[in-house]
Amino acid sequence: MWRDLLPLGRHPGSGGYRRYAWTPADADCRAWFRAQAETRGLTYEADRNGNQWAWLGDPAQGDAVVTGSHLDSVPDGGAFDGPLGVVSAFAALDEVRRRDVPLTKPLGIVNFGDEEGARFGLACVGSRLTAGHLTRDAAHRLTDGDGVTLPRAMEAAGHDPDGIGADPERLARIGAFVELHVEQGRALDLSGDPVGIASAIWPHGRWRFDFRGEANHAGTTRLDDRRDPMLPYAETVLAARREARLARAVATFGKVAVEPNGVNAIPSLVRGWLDSRAPGQDDLDTVVGAVEKAAREYADAHGVDLDVVRESFTPVVEFDHALRERLGRILGKGDTIEKTPLTVPVLGTGAGHDAGILSGTVPTAMLFVRNPTGVSHSPAESATEDDCVAGVLALADVLEGLIRT
Amino acid sequence: MWRDLLPLGRHPGSGGYRRYAWTPADADCRAWFRAQAETRGLTYEADRNGNQWAWLGDPAQGDAVVTGSHLDSVPDGGAFDGPLGVVSAFAALDEVRRRDVPLTKPLGIVNFGDEEGARFGLACVGSRLTAGHLTRDAAHRLTDGDGVTLPRAMEAAGHDPDGIGADPERLARIGAFVELHVEQGRALDLSGDPVGIASAIWPHGRWRFDFRGEANHAGTTRLDDRRDPMLPYAETVLAARREARLARAVATFGKVAVEPNGVNAIPSLVRGWLDSRAPGQDDLDTVVGAVEKAAREYADAHGVDLDVVRESFTPVVEFDHALRERLGRILGKGDTIEKTPLTVPVLGTGAGHDAGILSGTVPTAMLFVRNPTGVSHSPAESATEDDCVAGVLALADVLEGLIRT
Repeated sequence: MWRDLLPLGRHPGSGGYRRYAWTPADADCRAWFRAQAETRGLTYEADRNGNQWAWLGDPAQGDAVVTGSHLDSVPDGGAFDGPLGVVSAFAALDEVRRRDVPLTKPLGIVNFGDEEGARFGLACVGSRLTAGHLTRDAAHRLTDGDGVTLPRAMEAAGHDPDGIGADPERLARIGAFVELHVEQGRALDLSGDPVGIASAIWPHGRWRFDFRGEANHAGTTRLDDRRDPMLPYAETVLAARREARLARAVATFGKVAVEPNGVNAIPSLVRGWLDSRAPGQDDLDTVVGAVEKAAREYADAHGVDLDVVRESFTPVVEFDHALRERLGRILGKGDTIEKTPLTVPVLGTGAGHDAGILSGTVPTAMLFVRNPTGVSHSPAESATEDDCVAGVLALADVLEGLIRT
Repeated sequence: MWRDLLPLGRHPGSGGYRRYAWTPADADCRAWFRAQAETRGLTYEADRNGNQWAWLGDPAQGDAVVTGSHLDSVPDGGAFDGPLGVVSAFAALDEVRRRDVPLTKPLGIVNFGDEEGARFGLACVGSRLTAGHLTRDAAHRLTDGDGVTLPRAMEAAGHDPDGIGADPERLARIGAFVELHVEQGRALDLSGDPVGIASAIWPHGRWRFDFRGEANHAGTTRLDDRRDPMLPYAETVLAARREARLARAVATFGKVAVEPNGVNAIPSLVRGWLDSRAPGQDDLDTVVGAVEKAAREYADAHGVDLDVVRESFTPVVEFDHALRERLGRILGKGDTIEKTPLTVPVLGTGAGHDAGILSGTVPTAMLFVRNPTGVSHSPAESATEDDCVAGVLALADVLEGLIRT
């Protein structure tokens, strides 16, 4: 199963995956999903929003147990982010069947469309549309880097773009959704555990820092006469790292734009984007407040003006507490205090997921599988075969437990 | 005269000048030059390399005294950089005539073509070609931002591009060249003098710093697991300012390129360009050596690789000592020690000029006129009317002195 999926959308040069929504590589991945469903005699359906479903039992019965993730990728992404959750879903369903669990509830597998947002710039389009967090009109305005709109891209892939939008009936049939995902960090590697349970998706936001100085000749302008915005920008980059470390958060300046960006010109503008995330809202407020305060002091010291604009913000997503505790009991056999081979750590994450989108509507949980490199969104992300098997067995335990109780 | 020139090539939005080589705005400036020459009964000629000349007396006589500058501009440049030297040349020639100086040597005025290099990316094309520092073949490969080659642009402006190249006969007729230029800094403003004499053009160079780390997810990668090249880049920006101050030099990071330059991605590459200039070669070596050493230490501390490449370098240009001393005697009446109203300070500059190009072939000197803002390459550059008159009278004194002796 895994072997058939591996070559799809893989770029021969980079070794990374380029599976973008509504492209031929995406269609190949969808064909793979449908074939996996049909091989197992599952009921296959593609919904109005480009998500794929495979059902054991009749979803109309309600209180369904659903697992799955996504198959699309970031540019030159790794093999595991997304696909591990879908492949593990099919493997865990096979395991549940092998155990002859009496099927008192329908069991579903989902592949959410366009999770990474690599083509149209917005993440989790399939789950956002379904949950009603993204309107049909707003989705119709999404455009890729070549100027192709989302509805035109959908049509080109044979999908009707007029039917997209909130799908509350579909979500109402789901009693619990569990997404398995490769960890995008090294917490499990450091704790020595193959599998963990997500506690929450950290609150996170993006802030744009515009440092405006005065363009001038880099050869002839005395240092004392300069209003060089690159200097307070540089000091702010260092402050962000310092404050993030103090608050056990993360803070990153990964994007910058400079005007006029000439080798012999003192810049008139340095625009830097801060991405920051923290375990709690207070921590995040502390980090961003301290970085902004430091930036203002540095800007003042250099005669530079500063504007700070919050461009996006997502509050903390706490996964359903009752479901989380049930997962803990199922996997840890009730023993979550003592450190035993069966204890499963609970950890937060700084990344967004379809599970985070659905968590406002459906009881939702996540399982993470250890990633020894900690690297994410890169071909260097990895998981050992033993850990993948541990993930499948944990997911099967969870599905069995949720079906039985 | 100045009034006729002011509106040419001025952009109505920015208030700055956009006089680029071989454009209609450039042609307007050239027509102005020719009209000024013909109004005065001077002999006008345009040479093979796009420079314009106006002669009082016969240049074939040799040992000519020449003054002038350029009329083209940087993007959104000011009114003075270049044109002040040409306008002052005509005004000083008028003054020399008014004084009835016996014309024992030919007196010439020049407008060098394409000094700023705003269109084709190489500065001082007219003087470089004439002095043989730029070959015809290399010049023919120059291309502007729209893909138009220099020869095509010359043809479009009615100039034969096949005739360009070294013109040693023309330079051999010149006994002394003096360029008057608005100061691109505040040394004269600080010393309280309207006019100064250039000592040298500082050695300067450009170095590319490539900091290579590891792209990763900005939300999920622990700080300790990052190899973020933005951090050592930021520390290097601050080190450059620190080292420049210590050495009384200048050092600027004005251009930067980031990959992948995504808000939620730790960069894989941060490429920054250092422009540094200093009064002497030793100072410059000290600054750049110290910045590179600091950058390596910062890069090592962050697990980031660093390559430093020197992309260009121009050694110090010392203006002709004998000519400089003659200018000092003419303007200072021999008194260069005591600070009197007639004493003229001698100062270095970080900017390149046609005078710097010619200085290897012809005895060359420069006069600077005070710029109270110190701003250069911007509409904010300025000179008062009194200081412009002082510049014209100083230039007339120099021309008279050079003709008489």
